[in-house]
Amino acid sequence: MTVVDVPDGSPFGLANLPYGVFSTPGAPPRAGVRLGDAVVDLARLLDDPVFAAPELNGFLAQGRARWTQVRERITALLAGDVPDDAVHPVAAVTMHLPFAVADYVDFYASEHHATNLGRLFRPDSEPLMPNWKHLPVGYHGRAGTVVVSGTEVVRPCGQRKAPDEPAPTYGPSRRLDIEAELGFVVGTGSALGERIGVDEFAEHVFGAVLVNDWSARDLQAWEYVPLGPHLGKSFATSVSPWLVPLAALEAARMPLPGQDPQPLPYLRGGEDWGLDVDLVVEWNGEEVARPPYREMYWSPAQMLAHLTVNGASARTGDLFASGTVSGPEPRQRGAFIELTWGGKEPVTVKGEQRTFLLDGDEVTISATAPGPGGTRIGFGEVSGTVARARGAHD
Amino acid sequence: MTVVDVPDGSPFGLANLPYGVFSTPGAPPRAGVRLGDAVVDLARLLDDPVFAAPELNGFLAQGRARWTQVRERITALLAGDVPDDAVHPVAAVTMHLPFAVADYVDFYASEHHATNLGRLFRPDSEPLMPNWKHLPVGYHGRAGTVVVSGTEVVRPCGQRKAPDEPAPTYGPSRRLDIEAELGFVVGTGSALGERIGVDEFAEHVFGAVLVNDWSARDLQAWEYVPLGPHLGKSFATSVSPWLVPLAALEAARMPLPGQDPQPLPYLRGGEDWGLDVDLVVEWNGEEVARPPYREMYWSPAQMLAHLTVNGASARTGDLFASGTVSGPEPRQRGAFIELTWGGKEPVTVKGEQRTFLLDGDEVTISATAPGPGGTRIGFGEVSGTVARARGAHD
Repeated sequence: MTVVDVPDGSPFGLANLPYGVFSTPGAPPRAGVRLGDAVVDLARLLDDPVFAAPELNGFLAQGRARWTQVRERITALLAGDVPDDAVHPVAAVTMHLPFAVADYVDFYASEHHATNLGRLFRPDSEPLMPNWKHLPVGYHGRAGTVVVSGTEVVRPCGQRKAPDEPAPTYGPSRRLDIEAELGFVVGTGSALGERIGVDEFAEHVFGAVLVNDWSARDLQAWEYVPLGPHLGKSFATSVSPWLVPLAALEAARMPLPGQDPQPLPYLRGGEDWGLDVDLVVEWNGEEVARPPYREMYWSPAQMLAHLTVNGASARTGDLFASGTVSGPEPRQRGAFIELTWGGKEPVTVKGEQRTFLLDGDEVTISATAPGPGGTRIGFGEVSGTVARARGAHD
Repeated sequence: MTVVDVPDGSPFGLANLPYGVFSTPGAPPRAGVRLGDAVVDLARLLDDPVFAAPELNGFLAQGRARWTQVRERITALLAGDVPDDAVHPVAAVTMHLPFAVADYVDFYASEHHATNLGRLFRPDSEPLMPNWKHLPVGYHGRAGTVVVSGTEVVRPCGQRKAPDEPAPTYGPSRRLDIEAELGFVVGTGSALGERIGVDEFAEHVFGAVLVNDWSARDLQAWEYVPLGPHLGKSFATSVSPWLVPLAALEAARMPLPGQDPQPLPYLRGGEDWGLDVDLVVEWNGEEVARPPYREMYWSPAQMLAHLTVNGASARTGDLFASGTVSGPEPRQRGAFIELTWGGKEPVTVKGEQRTFLLDGDEVTISATAPGPGGTRIGFGEVSGTVARARGAHD
């Protein structure tokens, strides 16, 4: 038996306990919980086959009462001795996608980001569309290309056409970008024809991950009218391996910055799910932005209520992401197209002037939030390296 | 033992043999093949557990060589005596969703439809966007709300705002519509970072179903800028229960009507997957439109090549639909918004002037295509009845 050591100031203390799926050499992927610099094998610790699965979906589907019960049990067990063979150094395990993604929806909930993108994509129009302050604008992305942190991101090929070119050309994206986001994971779904009220958020959503919604801006700019982004986004979306339960984010909850006009009644009541999460974006190891989640206009409770108000069912494993987190300051922008203002204002990375991503570049997004008693809760990180395009010949 | 009788002129002869998932009272859903007015139990006929599953995905994942082998074996067996307990009258079974949907993408491949919708949604602009003839425009829909024919469609609630209203209001959609489409189902997928060439269509796609992409035009018109349709579509998408294999559609293949400008090289070579499929739309039992699939501008081979050209992986069970099938004539339009020109030109249904769908309305889309030797291949039908909105109070 052993006691899991938690280093002073670790963002993975007993108040956090995020869930993930890990494997060790020769053993299959299974569920674990992070404590300090260790991963604790939950199938071993709790002797429950739901945690022996290669994805958390079975546990997520069990519902909030069970989530609470398991968290209490883990908290109690990890305060004492645990079996030696249940504990693995985090550096010695491989992390996997923590849940099988059912549907993936990406929102657009930062007023600063939507305003900046509107100015860049539609310079001759009002930056915010008339609907933007009335509903959380969002769209469906490709669930099958959601990958875990560390997965290489192959530069996408596709069509792009600059305004001064007579016809589109085919080739590798020249404006490969990131979007730093938070993603929310549905535990218990809803039936077709029903809806999830804005006050039922915590009954249905298990927790949050970090998301990097890789974006090929040149492909997106050419394709996106009138049906929205498609190939500019569908090649890869990376998520962090640790799913932080909402229960760990109580101290991070705060009111939204304020909504004017007041939204329609079905969206009222979710304003208390603002979250004081600080994101950090590193480009080849150098910090380039600190997007503040507390600035987001729409809350995740409002996103879920909107998502289902038409009777669309939700399923275990549904992932809905916030859209790029950007604050009012230039160095709070969570996408490089904003940070470099469409490539016109390069940022310095390791002494070089940089705009969009080059092959070999690595981007890492991390985040922390307030925990109880002045501690911090860590989300870990989502990281990816850009690989050279394939099939770029035609 | 018994011989399955095939009525003269049946669109479900031995040249068709579509696959579905059915159940009989007291027995679980399992795979069957349609012959005449019978469903033949494949787990019983072939003694293969892959057909005992409640979805066809396991079989679809086995690949084209196996699909061919199974089709040959079924064809041979059904020409003779089969066990009595393998045969069920189609009227005595319940049909289920034939496959678990991985990702769902909806294209917009009819020039007539895209032009009509452009005129209706953006009357002051060119109806076709500049990208439309260069790439098959499409977007991701909600896989979790794809339902089988016969599933009731609850009228969706949501936000809508007429141009002359100062602010949006919430309530049941007032412009509930249909879209008559063909959908294509991926059998064997592709790896992340790879692409499926335009000539590899039949290696990856197993077959086709009918699709009704129910659409709330008022919700869609208000929400769709700039990220595309979302709640206006996500509440339900109905598919027919019979998955017609590509092998049954050889006689229906024909060249596309013609593409000008010539598409980029990665989209060339798929022009031989035009399909001579005749759709019929019935509204409360009265035929209101006959959309001709042969008029489609982009082929499904081009859609799949485009979908994956950025390295997006495909998975078994991916569904991609054509978008509304509309021909050049008014009575060839596969959506009511076109058929009634935005509600301004009602059609007569059972003696009444009708525009959009009322509660209780039933819509049935069916289709046939040429088979060998002057026969017809049937797709069966996709049907749905509109139920009253729920939760319309706020």
